[in-house]
Amino acid sequence: MLGRRQFGKLGGWLALGFACDFDRGGDPQVDDDRWQRALQIARDLLLIGPEGQDLKLEYLKILIDDGLPPTDAPKKVLVIGAGIAGLTAGLLLKQAGHDVTILEANANRIGGRIKTFRASDPLQPAPFADPAQYAEAGAMRLPDFHPLSLALVDKLGLPRRLFYNVDVVAPKPTLVPPVRYKSFTGEVWQNGEPIADFVPPDQALRTWIAVNGLLVRRSEYADDPALVNEGFGVMGVDVDRTTAEIFNAALDPVRDYFSDPLPDGTRENKPTEEWIEGWARAIYDFDGYSMSRYLTEYALLDEATVDAIGTVENATSRLAVVHAHLRRPQRHQPRRPLLGDRGRLLAPALRVRSAAAGPARARPPGRPDRHRRRPPRPAVRVETVDESGAPATEYTADLAIVTIPFSSLRHVEFDPPLSYGKRRAIIEMHYDSATKIVLEFSRRWWEFTEADWQDALEAIAPGLYEQYGEAPATHVFGGGSVTDNPNRNIYYPSHAIPGSPGGVVLASYTWADDAARWDSMTDDERYEFALRGLQDVHGERIAAFYTGRGRTQSWMNDRYAFGEAAVFLPNQLIELHLHTASVEGPLHFAGEHTSLKHAWVEGALESAVRAALEVHRR
Amino acid sequence: MLGRRQFGKLGGWLALGFACDFDRGGDPQVDDDRWQRALQIARDLLLIGPEGQDLKLEYLKILIDDGLPPTDAPKKVLVIGAGIAGLTAGLLLKQAGHDVTILEANANRIGGRIKTFRASDPLQPAPFADPAQYAEAGAMRLPDFHPLSLALVDKLGLPRRLFYNVDVVAPKPTLVPPVRYKSFTGEVWQNGEPIADFVPPDQALRTWIAVNGLLVRRSEYADDPALVNEGFGVMGVDVDRTTAEIFNAALDPVRDYFSDPLPDGTRENKPTEEWIEGWARAIYDFDGYSMSRYLTEYALLDEATVDAIGTVENATSRLAVVHAHLRRPQRHQPRRPLLGDRGRLLAPALRVRSAAAGPARARPPGRPDRHRRRPPRPAVRVETVDESGAPATEYTADLAIVTIPFSSLRHVEFDPPLSYGKRRAIIEMHYDSATKIVLEFSRRWWEFTEADWQDALEAIAPGLYEQYGEAPATHVFGGGSVTDNPNRNIYYPSHAIPGSPGGVVLASYTWADDAARWDSMTDDERYEFALRGLQDVHGERIAAFYTGRGRTQSWMNDRYAFGEAAVFLPNQLIELHLHTASVEGPLHFAGEHTSLKHAWVEGALESAVRAALEVHRR
Repeated sequence: MLGRRQFGKLGGWLALGFACDFDRGGDPQVDDDRWQRALQIARDLLLIGPEGQDLKLEYLKILIDDGLPPTDAPKKVLVIGAGIAGLTAGLLLKQAGHDVTILEANANRIGGRIKTFRASDPLQPAPFADPAQYAEAGAMRLPDFHPLSLALVDKLGLPRRLFYNVDVVAPKPTLVPPVRYKSFTGEVWQNGEPIADFVPPDQALRTWIAVNGLLVRRSEYADDPALVNEGFGVMGVDVDRTTAEIFNAALDPVRDYFSDPLPDGTRENKPTEEWIEGWARAIYDFDGYSMSRYLTEYALLDEATVDAIGTVENATSRLAVVHAHLRRPQRHQPRRPLLGDRGRLLAPALRVRSAAAGPARARPPGRPDRHRRRPPRPAVRVETVDESGAPATEYTADLAIVTIPFSSLRHVEFDPPLSYGKRRAIIEMHYDSATKIVLEFSRRWWEFTEADWQDALEAIAPGLYEQYGEAPATHVFGGGSVTDNPNRNIYYPSHAIPGSPGGVVLASYTWADDAARWDSMTDDERYEFALRGLQDVHGERIAAFYTGRGRTQSWMNDRYAFGEAAVFLPNQLIELHLHTASVEGPLHFAGEHTSLKHAWVEGALESAVRAALEVHRR
Repeated sequence: MLGRRQFGKLGGWLALGFACDFDRGGDPQVDDDRWQRALQIARDLLLIGPEGQDLKLEYLKILIDDGLPPTDAPKKVLVIGAGIAGLTAGLLLKQAGHDVTILEANANRIGGRIKTFRASDPLQPAPFADPAQYAEAGAMRLPDFHPLSLALVDKLGLPRRLFYNVDVVAPKPTLVPPVRYKSFTGEVWQNGEPIADFVPPDQALRTWIAVNGLLVRRSEYADDPALVNEGFGVMGVDVDRTTAEIFNAALDPVRDYFSDPLPDGTRENKPTEEWIEGWARAIYDFDGYSMSRYLTEYALLDEATVDAIGTVENATSRLAVVHAHLRRPQRHQPRRPLLGDRGRLLAPALRVRSAAAGPARARPPGRPDRHRRRPPRPAVRVETVDESGAPATEYTADLAIVTIPFSSLRHVEFDPPLSYGKRRAIIEMHYDSATKIVLEFSRRWWEFTEADWQDALEAIAPGLYEQYGEAPATHVFGGGSVTDNPNRNIYYPSHAIPGSPGGVVLASYTWADDAARWDSMTDDERYEFALRGLQDVHGERIAAFYTGRGRTQSWMNDRYAFGEAAVFLPNQLIELHLHTASVEGPLHFAGEHTSLKHAWVEGALESAVRAALEVHRR
């Protein structure tokens, strides 16, 4: 029998003997194929073209400034899917003179995972008691480092407003700075004059961390992290550091691969070649790591600390899937722009057709037919089944851009079959769950001081304030609270809707396993349970203002999306990514899953311009 | 700028410096807390009691032979959940003289994840065109190494039949051997006389591996693995080994921890203490490993080989979650018994009440009330909301056994709160997706020879056979095919139903991400797509016998289960398991998720006897 000491040694050796070869004498065992893939993925991630050009800059000029150059050889192009990627690619190609048809499976709506619950949709009953109210089921915020998204909003003439990812002392008027992108080449792209005195509003940090039976404001936690950390059993020096600080410090060694810390606490990218190679190294070294594995095995954090980070930074449910190197923890930096409310997102000139819910077949032609007179270029034929049950329709074109998620593409037949790599990506790429539950209230109680609470409740019925009893007034504008109850994440609206005393709270926003805990409930059950979770943090009295109206969106249960977005499992970045966008005969591919900004509008737009260029240049 | 060679070394060092400390001079860094947990988990896994007794043997004697001894201090016990764990625990306690009430949320059915689609259910429309046909949505087979399950079937007087996990040359009559369990103590438990000449039927291996555009019988694959392996790009010696052989060889080093190979290819457990410690070491060393990580980093298999194993052994979708040390690959061994068809599973004397779909609260009493006269033992109060919308009901008892999945328990309030460890397990334990789609056919075409096909099709319409064209006749009894189309796994019935020329095929059985690809479809869409996937393997002509009737079960979308079963993510075994069954005041816990036979009836039964004993002895 082996004693414990022996086994520890043996176990360690068995498990790590291979890995330790790296560190011993002789050449390191670099897997050259893996390294080449990591290098190309780094370039894709950083949007660096084959000649070293900045593709982001190129895409901004095409999408926002110039469009594609007019074609002198118009092609007939099918675009599958009328999400933001398909619409954008289609619009660019149409404006360049091509003949574009966009197919969309959803007979009631285009826009894909940009989906706003609002009364102006004539096909739906008004979602909320107050017809002025709305809420976003999908893409709810556009970060300020996503210039394609923001500049497209501006170009379409839609208003932008600040989104307060952290609650602020007082919301600011809707003055927002222009979009500015500084390339690694030094060139700057900007769509307006800077606002000289633009200062975002001060953070308040009055939102809640409600975990382990405690209710602590974020500011209190920042002042005394032990208040919360001790509930998880965090020990040693980490007990007095916020989970954000611990998490960031844990990630710094990876950031050191490609950037250097500056005295002010920010970081600066390394010179271009080192920057690219640093990212490639990070991908090469850590693609096999889940966040959980990274924090445990590499950053050497203990179980309690990882659990605290997971809960407070809202990462628990994704610890097993998200990559160390692609996550940017940034909870405490306000994110600027918001997708314009009630905006029209559509270019009305596009022909959008309802199709493709049933079995669809996309058929590149196999070998050219020797008897055909003019086989000028590959042709594609798409058969669709209308979701109304109408007979199958057939569309033909020279080329197609397939933008639908690989999770739904799984059920589309291709004849001849796609390449092994593409099929594998379609079969295996992980799509994650994400579920939102929004509840409407007739008053914005989250903005209330305690005096406001007294006034508002007494106005309903004298004595009601006493009857409910006191609960801490949240008194915030924007931002969000985090809880270990099933709601997990709560977001308050950043802005009032003019003329409306109420508002819609994102009562629960969950991912992965946290979302699965909601997905088998009926919508009404979700509202009931989500209200209870909200009361658990904010007190019973919020029920006085609940209008009884809510909306919910499970992206995993969505019949067009089959998941929120592509989220790579360990090793899928290196093993699958390069197959996502590769061209297959007449078929091109776009959509967030073909970019390296998964789940973001920005990634979908990058892919749309890239695919439009591919088709245009063919 | 770092060159590649430098980075390889640096990257390796950064990533593995910690781990390599294990292998250098000085004491190995054994984490004693982790080791103690691993040891206890090994004992739980192997069912070894605190005094070294064989708990499986003890449970067999209680559940099957003797029951619990009659109590002289009857307790009032609430059992939450009328799945097999709750029913079994309740029955044992009732028979011992306790006052038992079982609460069940589902107003229409008990049995939990044992759920048979059959016409004899008066509350449901007949599922299939032929009322004699049935299919199992959940627990469809009971392995021959699960003696509690099999012996309970026998005890209830239900018939058992062989389940052919691998297709056989000809099905055998329903003669099945008695249940036999040989303990590590040497003691043997058996519920009947052995059948001297029992021999399971010969395997045929005529079912299909349909991947990468190929259609290969399992026997052909066994004879020439390269046929299939080359499609994945498998190279070197592995190209000529079946994926099962490669997989088994890869796992052998872990098996060596606790068992020794025998000359006949089977394995023998090490002596008891080494056996336990070996399992503990395996858990200690590999709990952080997903199967994918194990195969890649420890077994050093390349990407192509791992992908081949994942696809052919049907492990792809779970590679990221399943543990190396808990999986038993056994595709090619026939599994014996089947849960008796049309069996009554219920002890009719139990009081089963419909309850608890809405918010339920389980309240242990906090501090004892000083003014109460007789606080003889802890008391529990359970509030339920009937799913019919009836007013909340309150149940009180001395003790309760909570058997519902942690995924659904997530939405139950406890006052006072449960312990940190229990709460964490309820919040974080991964529950996996699993989805079945069964289709009914008027003839058992999978049993057909080509001549049978001709006869059967010509009987429908002369010329029909020619019209469909030839496709390879499957000609199997039982077993299953594997495919890389969305259906993934196909199972053929092991037996005909007397008097019925037809049968129900499990057209698609998927887990994890593979299941998520189906879950947002409507039932009718699933049937349509699943039929297409079946035709993809078996030819268009099977449509001639499709009755148009199917049934489907997504366990993730099931409103009572919230998932198929507990499936641990990396590190969850060590971090969460010991909290699953721990007693919380008057609350005891049972269900498959508290055992270490997740997703199996056997684990639920082990937990039921364990929890009944806990309550009985209190």
